[in-house]
Amino acid sequence: MQVESTFERARALKYPEQIVIAIARDPAGKYNPITLGWVTQTSHEPPMFAISIGNTRYSLGVIRAAKEFVLAWPSEHQKDETLFFGTKSGREVDKLAEAGTPTQPARAIDGVLLRDAVANLECRLVSELQTGDHVIFVGQVVAAHVNRRPLNRLYTVGENYQFEGLPRR
Amino acid sequence: MQVESTFERARALKYPEQIVIAIARDPAGKYNPITLGWVTQTSHEPPMFAISIGNTRYSLGVIRAAKEFVLAWPSEHQKDETLFFGTKSGREVDKLAEAGTPTQPARAIDGVLLRDAVANLECRLVSELQTGDHVIFVGQVVAAHVNRRPLNRLYTVGENYQFEGLPRR
Repeated sequence: MQVESTFERARALKYPEQIVIAIARDPAGKYNPITLGWVTQTSHEPPMFAISIGNTRYSLGVIRAAKEFVLAWPSEHQKDETLFFGTKSGREVDKLAEAGTPTQPARAIDGVLLRDAVANLECRLVSELQTGDHVIFVGQVVAAHVNRRPLNRLYTVGENYQFEGLPRR
Repeated sequence: MQVESTFERARALKYPEQIVIAIARDPAGKYNPITLGWVTQTSHEPPMFAISIGNTRYSLGVIRAAKEFVLAWPSEHQKDETLFFGTKSGREVDKLAEAGTPTQPARAIDGVLLRDAVANLECRLVSELQTGDHVIFVGQVVAAHVNRRPLNRLYTVGENYQFEGLPRR
C-alpha cells in the first residue's frame, strides 16, 4: 500500500546507489576527478553512458572543453578517495595528486585511468542536455579496461556518504 | 593494475544495477509497465529523473504520447513481475492484467502506482535526447509515494536476470 510522501522521504529509499568517478583534463593540463552517483548506460550499440553533473561544478566546464572523459568504477577499497573526489573542488585542489591515487595513461583519449578501480571506460562526449540544476553528458565508450584482480564495486548504501562494496553474482 | 578489455567484459562487472518500472497510459487506455535498468536522478531542484528506453520498445511511443509516467522501485518480493514486465511487450499483452499486479491510482497524473513497490514517483516528461539505440526521457517528479512497510529495493546482481533485494543502511 502506497502513501503519498515528500520527494525527500521517497529519495531516502533509493539506496544502494552505484558510484562512478569521471576524470577529464582541465585547461591547465591537470586530470580532474569527480565522484558521481547519477550515471546510467544509455546505448548498447554503440555503447554510451550518461552522467549528470551539477551546474556549479568545476567538472562541468572541464568535460565540456575536453570533449572526452574516463569513467572509473571505484572498488570497495577506494572509499577515502571516492569521498575526497566528491567533496573537494578541482578549482582549488589537484585531487589526484593530493590523494596520491595511482593512475595509468588512457589509450584512445587524453586521459588517465584509476589503476586500482574495478574498471575504466574511455568516453568521447557526443551530446549534452540541460536538466534542471544538472547537465547530462552522453559519452560514447571508445576503449575499456578492467582490473587484473576481481574486485567488488563501491556503492552508496545510505545517507551521508555511507560507502560499501557489494558483491556481484 | 588495468588491462585493456572488450566493452562486454567490463560491462559484466557493473552489477549490482538498480531496477525501476516505468508505467504510462497507452493510446488504447491501458497502463503499460516496462522494467528498466538504465535510470538516474538528474536534478535536485526541481527533482528530475532520466530513463533510457530502446528505440524498438513499445514504451517509447507510449511515453512520448502520454507525456507523463510513473517510476516505481520494485521490492525484493517482485522478482516475477519485474522479469515479466521487462521481457514481454505491451504491443501484445496487457502486462499488469496478466501478472495480476495490484495498482493504485496516481494523484497528479493519469497513471497508476504499483501498490507493493518500495516507492512510486509521478513524473511529467520535460525533454528527450536520442542516444545511440536508446532515447533518454527526462521526467520531473510531481508527486511521490512510499510503501507503508519498509522494504528492500530489487537489483540485478548478475547476468541473465539474476534479481535480488539489497538492504540500505
